[in-house]
Amino acid sequence: MTTPAPRFAGVVPPVVTPLTEEGAVDVASLERLIERTLGAGVDGIFALGSSGETVFLTDSQRDQALEVVVKTVAGAVPVIAGCIEPTTRRVLDRADVSTRLGVDGLVATAPFYAIVGPHEVERHFRSLAASVELPLLAYDIPVCVHTKLSPGLLSQLAAEGILAGVKDSSGDDVAFRQLVLAIAERAPDAGFSLLTGHEVVVDAMMLAGASGSVPGLANVDPAGYVRLHRACVNGDWDTARAEQDRLTRLFRIVDAADPATAAGATRGVGAFKTALALLGVIDSNTVSLPMRPLDADETARVRAQLELAGLL
Amino acid sequence: MTTPAPRFAGVVPPVVTPLTEEGAVDVASLERLIERTLGAGVDGIFALGSSGETVFLTDSQRDQALEVVVKTVAGAVPVIAGCIEPTTRRVLDRADVSTRLGVDGLVATAPFYAIVGPHEVERHFRSLAASVELPLLAYDIPVCVHTKLSPGLLSQLAAEGILAGVKDSSGDDVAFRQLVLAIAERAPDAGFSLLTGHEVVVDAMMLAGASGSVPGLANVDPAGYVRLHRACVNGDWDTARAEQDRLTRLFRIVDAADPATAAGATRGVGAFKTALALLGVIDSNTVSLPMRPLDADETARVRAQLELAGLL
Amino acid sequence: MTTPAPRFAGVVPPVVTPLTEEGAVDVASLERLIERTLGAGVDGIFALGSSGETVFLTDSQRDQALEVVVKTVAGAVPVIAGCIEPTTRRVLDRADVSTRLGVDGLVATAPFYAIVGPHEVERHFRSLAASVELPLLAYDIPVCVHTKLSPGLLSQLAAEGILAGVKDSSGDDVAFRQLVLAIAERAPDAGFSLLTGHEVVVDAMMLAGASGSVPGLANVDPAGYVRLHRACVNGDWDTARAEQDRLTRLFRIVDAADPATAAGATRGVGAFKTALALLGVIDSNTVSLPMRPLDADETARVRAQLELAGLL
Amino acid sequence: MTTPAPRFAGVVPPVVTPLTEEGAVDVASLERLIERTLGAGVDGIFALGSSGETVFLTDSQRDQALEVVVKTVAGAVPVIAGCIEPTTRRVLDRADVSTRLGVDGLVATAPFYAIVGPHEVERHFRSLAASVELPLLAYDIPVCVHTKLSPGLLSQLAAEGILAGVKDSSGDDVAFRQLVLAIAERAPDAGFSLLTGHEVVVDAMMLAGASGSVPGLANVDPAGYVRLHRACVNGDWDTARAEQDRLTRLFRIVDAADPATAAGATRGVGAFKTALALLGVIDSNTVSLPMRPLDADETARVRAQLELAGLL
Repeated sequence: MTTPAPRFAGVVPPVVTPLTEEGAVDVASLERLIERTLGAGVDGIFALGSSGETVFLTDSQRDQALEVVVKTVAGAVPVIAGCIEPTTRRVLDRADVSTRLGVDGLVATAPFYAIVGPHEVERHFRSLAASVELPLLAYDIPVCVHTKLSPGLLSQLAAEGILAGVKDSSGDDVAFRQLVLAIAERAPDAGFSLLTGHEVVVDAMMLAGASGSVPGLANVDPAGYVRLHRACVNGDWDTARAEQDRLTRLFRIVDAADPATAAGATRGVGAFKTALALLGVIDSNTVSLPMRPLDADETARVRAQLELAGLL
Repeated sequence: MTTPAPRFAGVVPPVVTPLTEEGAVDVASLERLIERTLGAGVDGIFALGSSGETVFLTDSQRDQALEVVVKTVAGAVPVIAGCIEPTTRRVLDRADVSTRLGVDGLVATAPFYAIVGPHEVERHFRSLAASVELPLLAYDIPVCVHTKLSPGLLSQLAAEGILAGVKDSSGDDVAFRQLVLAIAERAPDAGFSLLTGHEVVVDAMMLAGASGSVPGLANVDPAGYVRLHRACVNGDWDTARAEQDRLTRLFRIVDAADPATAAGATRGVGAFKTALALLGVIDSNTVSLPMRPLDADETARVRAQLELAGLL
Repeated sequence: MTTPAPRFAGVVPPVVTPLTEEGAVDVASLERLIERTLGAGVDGIFALGSSGETVFLTDSQRDQALEVVVKTVAGAVPVIAGCIEPTTRRVLDRADVSTRLGVDGLVATAPFYAIVGPHEVERHFRSLAASVELPLLAYDIPVCVHTKLSPGLLSQLAAEGILAGVKDSSGDDVAFRQLVLAIAERAPDAGFSLLTGHEVVVDAMMLAGASGSVPGLANVDPAGYVRLHRACVNGDWDTARAEQDRLTRLFRIVDAADPATAAGATRGVGAFKTALALLGVIDSNTVSLPMRPLDADETARVRAQLELAGLL
Repeated sequence: MTTPAPRFAGVVPPVVTPLTEEGAVDVASLERLIERTLGAGVDGIFALGSSGETVFLTDSQRDQALEVVVKTVAGAVPVIAGCIEPTTRRVLDRADVSTRLGVDGLVATAPFYAIVGPHEVERHFRSLAASVELPLLAYDIPVCVHTKLSPGLLSQLAAEGILAGVKDSSGDDVAFRQLVLAIAERAPDAGFSLLTGHEVVVDAMMLAGASGSVPGLANVDPAGYVRLHRACVNGDWDTARAEQDRLTRLFRIVDAADPATAAGATRGVGAFKTALALLGVIDSNTVSLPMRPLDADETARVRAQLELAGLL
């Protein structure tokens, strides 16, 4: 018997949520974004993640965005939905809505705002899994929730079938490598999905044993990430490295916003949206308060990087 | 002309939200808690703060709790309501609901989960104030939101009338002292409320110039905090110190839960609720997932401290 | 029997180490600084602390500075010496030298650079105390060593006679208050010294039960801190608060250096030395690499604060 | 013209400093360790790094260890020496001694204990480089010094010839990848050495463009790391991955010590020394205070991993 393939693998872009200048979900832009992304050959869509501004949207905006994504994807690839709320019951409410809207998997972080320790984190994921029917993925993003999910906990929950996978946005390659080995040893038959969330080390993490990637930058260049993934899967590491290098340079669009007046969220999502607007995929680079959109100078810097990367 | 009194001052307990064993808001217990707290002579009520498990409750539970608080207080003292959500628009939605439910002031933190810097934080509070009619207080709680509000920003927003006060749960007495002076210099006529959130240093912060306190422990011993506050206001620092020492010992109930299996939120709110159940004020010490309630051994340790403090 | 007075109490300035423009210890300036400080009525001298640039000096410079301090103080008040090294044996080497040079007490931090936990920290202090003859004080300065000393550990080591006191530069007033109570309960007869290192909350910490203070700003205005301390001891809290407010404003000299090009160490020690040079106490505001001295504009800002405080 | 090879590349083990049970440098054990390491085909030796307990040793112990290393290596491969002190002048003193003792390169961290910002860090490295004759490598180890060296600063200093390389122990693979690209663009002819310090991701970092590795675990299995490096250089990524997986499992010896009573430094260096003692390379697993040596149970766990890895 061979090890089963992970349920969620390949390139799974965490799509942005386009907004009109008035702050409403821009349905037409979102449809175009999804169609372009699918057209590039991606393997899944992650809606309402950090790049999707999920914590900036109201519940009704979230529902609306999710409906558009599910309808536009139309079963072509799996859709996983972020259920990003501080605590268990609130996550479950989002899980219920997402399930009704027809997604294929759910993504939850460790609790945030609430001060918790390892026991609360474990109880959180166990309680979630006990109440949802869809596969549950853990979103390891300590820069936002200020808790790192340990390889020990993740592999234990994988072995028990509590978790179906992880999106690793921890930036901790040492822990990711140890997680890969722990899954191979403790849950080899689980089909556990090991997805890296870091745009610039996909080749390295694939070499280390990742199942795929969830790169925010794939909003901008999904075809590049598909080429990169295929090269990794084929063991063509020279091609992978070259493609990764090009994408790593493109990732410099997140440095376009002036660091004196714009921090993390603004710089990342703001740049992705600005690039997509420049590419004609979405209508506006509007982002949610308290972020601000990139201005003309910053937009010019994004444009320059798109040109360097051959996208414009 | 004299400096106006701050709009919110004195003892303003951040009330817990009693839950039934099934996790519903326990209305009768909440009513008894509010009545006992008012009976002790407090100067305000802070609903849906961290002690109120606000990030653990659904929106409908929050609404229900707030209705009960407003109705039970019945105008006897001001009610301020936590609008604790990660980003601006979501806070505003809570502000709208809270305003409709009849509270007297709104409390918001810096953004959380979202990665922000000083400009986003400032834009957040300015955007909130521009859209709400009620007085807005900033809740400075870096242990939860991982951003410290600087004395410079707070005093600037005070001078402009953007903020009506601050609840300082930062544990940073140096910054609090600098804030007191900055307010005295830059916004002396604003009636700005300087409220400390730390149970064990109320006397010291009152000496430093605080307007009052928002002590979680006042759920358990509101009369003690009222005595402490009056002693401070009267300049009777020996009495204040003695009362503070007794309350500091009582605060050891937050050490009752086993640190090997319970972290911050569980230990604090769990202990307050357990004490209130032992005192007969609320029916159950149930807390929200992923927290767990204190067990029998832990409850015995809470009981011992209540006896030492003369409350049982 | 009454509780014994702490061995080290009152105002104990952590003196800077004046340097010539070439970076040598400026003996004449150091003598003048000590004489002025003693003349103000202080109760002790802390040499080679953080304000003394101890981690910037070579061992021979440290020895030279300590010799000058001990000789100039000449027994008028106790001298305590920082033995600031990353690990146990290196601290002991500094303790041996300091003891031979005639100091009255030794001050050591938790280990730094080395990654340690509670057991290593406890073993560190126990090992130090087992090998030194002089009283040993713990220096709680997490901003530098990235470990907070818990009230539980400190009070345990106080009760066993391992530690004679603490200099608290943690900025954690909640923990300090709990430490005061823990010492009162567990080591009431130890004469344990509870010294706050924070310039702007001395009145509040004295109310909370501190034995005295180790304020870096007392390099600049020792007489102000002596007045403040005496008011606290006499229970004259109105006078204490007024003096504290004046000193808190004076402390704004640490904001004189441009934050865009100067960080913590530069801003603090650099400002103290610049103020002392303006006051004619020391010859040069030179600081050690990689810090830089305050420039002309920054010096003008220090001068303005000295004038506001009535010192110039 | 082709890009020059980096001056320091390949496998450069950061050797431990064997101690006698009394805490003296164990010269015979150190000689055996160096000879075994050289015999495995390594490309350099890093003495007095974190694994070498450099911050635990007195200056005379450091000198003695360095003398033994230089003499035993006898020019077979380059020796680089850690000059690990909190501030500029103290690092320079260690650099002078190390240079006189005949090493081939110097390694320095960002300042520590002292509170510094980007300008102080840059001034630190520039001042060091201006005063030393040997190549200077930056040691990026935020877990110890609490400052991350940015790709922007490192590539700038590389382009100017200030720095000859970096040992990256930051665990931040995203920044490392960006550094690799920045060096390729800004300092392609500098022969800049990009060395990863992380044992379990050498294959991934080599794919990303590293020049080599400085793995603490190479104390225990230098031959494994030499095989791993050669496979990477030859583009034989399947072999590299398999060897890396074996070494990643072996790295679990750092989990042998009980986490309830031993923290980072103890667990890492303690495990390496225990393994080396079990392998008969060094006489004792003694570590410096305030660490403790691994006990019998913990040693048994190390033995089990050595057996699994085929080393015993």
